[in-house]
Amino acid sequence: MIELYQSFQSTCSGKVRLVMEEKGIPYTERDVNLATGEQFDPEYMKLNSKAVVPTIIHDGRVLRESSLIMEYLDETFDGPSLTPGDPYKQWRMRMFNKLLDEEVHAYINLVTYAVVGRHTRSENRTPEEIEEHFRKMPDQAKAERQRQVHEKGVHSEPFKAAIKGMDKLLAEIEGALEEFGGPWILGEAYSIADAAVTTYVLRLDVCGFEDMWEGRRPLVAEWWQRIKDRPNFVGAMSPRTPRQDIDSRKEYGAEAVPIIRELFAA
Amino acid sequence: MIELYQSFQSTCSGKVRLVMEEKGIPYTERDVNLATGEQFDPEYMKLNSKAVVPTIIHDGRVLRESSLIMEYLDETFDGPSLTPGDPYKQWRMRMFNKLLDEEVHAYINLVTYAVVGRHTRSENRTPEEIEEHFRKMPDQAKAERQRQVHEKGVHSEPFKAAIKGMDKLLAEIEGALEEFGGPWILGEAYSIADAAVTTYVLRLDVCGFEDMWEGRRPLVAEWWQRIKDRPNFVGAMSPRTPRQDIDSRKEYGAEAVPIIRELFAA
Repeated sequence: MIELYQSFQSTCSGKVRLVMEEKGIPYTERDVNLATGEQFDPEYMKLNSKAVVPTIIHDGRVLRESSLIMEYLDETFDGPSLTPGDPYKQWRMRMFNKLLDEEVHAYINLVTYAVVGRHTRSENRTPEEIEEHFRKMPDQAKAERQRQVHEKGVHSEPFKAAIKGMDKLLAEIEGALEEFGGPWILGEAYSIADAAVTTYVLRLDVCGFEDMWEGRRPLVAEWWQRIKDRPNFVGAMSPRTPRQDIDSRKEYGAEAVPIIRELFAA
Repeated sequence: MIELYQSFQSTCSGKVRLVMEEKGIPYTERDVNLATGEQFDPEYMKLNSKAVVPTIIHDGRVLRESSLIMEYLDETFDGPSLTPGDPYKQWRMRMFNKLLDEEVHAYINLVTYAVVGRHTRSENRTPEEIEEHFRKMPDQAKAERQRQVHEKGVHSEPFKAAIKGMDKLLAEIEGALEEFGGPWILGEAYSIADAAVTTYVLRLDVCGFEDMWEGRRPLVAEWWQRIKDRPNFVGAMSPRTPRQDIDSRKEYGAEAVPIIRELFAA
């Protein structure tokens, strides 16, 4: 039994759940509410000093970093192997994880903040508290970017840059589907690469941004349908995610759809 | 035969060479002179769009990212396996790579710039050219840190913070040597974890900073002697590294030794 410390819509928690669902590994979810700051609880930070989700506990051992947890679970448990046998494909699989961890993760967080997070923050805090938050950030160049995104949302330049960054991920997926012949990213077998990218594409889908692949990236569009039809897809988001949280993303996302269309028409 | 695009003292090139020496993989070195900007040559950037070393070519395929190249070489070639069989130890091995890629690499570059790079830059450019360089950097918070390091060198606060960051790596090595009982980081067998951290500890050693472990981190001190005695250590630096480049690091590093002693006496 795995104990999974997770948050409902967290992309990185979803990666780990997808692997556990695929391999039939039993798990219990322990919720960490990121909106109320439960990740900074000293008890949780003993498990995860970076104050992020997910964390798993297995056999009394604490493991962090979703990209490495996926590999650990795949090696440890029976069931279909999610790691290709070919070392070159293994390298490609890990390059997808590296791209997510070092670039895409920051982009998707910015996209989410521009679409919905800034509205939630404005509902819960006064303008003075928000400005105080930006003023206290140690990296003032980052604070200035966040301030722009907070004020202008999906009309801000950082939002557009983040959407282009997300398109780089879609291009990588399209390229691998072509190179290895599908139906999955690394070829015949569903792998950690598929599980890893699923939650990032799902976030775009939930926001209503499917124009980023439909009609533009034909192999991604077909692959995405296969991903959604696969039984383990139930793990991409916790089934207990409040319906209103999902709906609000699509409602707020509608404002961005024409902006995204224009971005890719250019 | 592996073609290795490398730079003489680059920590990441050294990681790959250590693995090839350990496994007896034949390789040819292709030099990329980072000081004269050869990494930005459009021909090289076709192989490595991030303009960094190393890159390897094997069987006509181009592979980047030293931490993932090490795993690729270990899986592809015969010889002693450098990956532990136990999935938990595999996770620990990859956590070392993640710590290096996401934190330690930036620290060691800052340490090197404070100790020697700033002197080289001042010899080759006018103060106006150097100020112009800082003014043009897109991240001005980072530019301000670099300006401090350029002006005050090993007396600057960012240098001290980077040394403390490097000490975090030494603490991780010490912890693993204790947990797994040595003689290598993950226990009985020399692994990718040992190869990965070697070039970072070597950089501190070359600068004359061995007080960071001698008398302070007894297990690291013993392990470091074993690392230097191991035949593959010849790969940690290219044997063609100009002697004066190595000597100048120790000469310039001497200024920092009392600062480091004071830092850890506190």
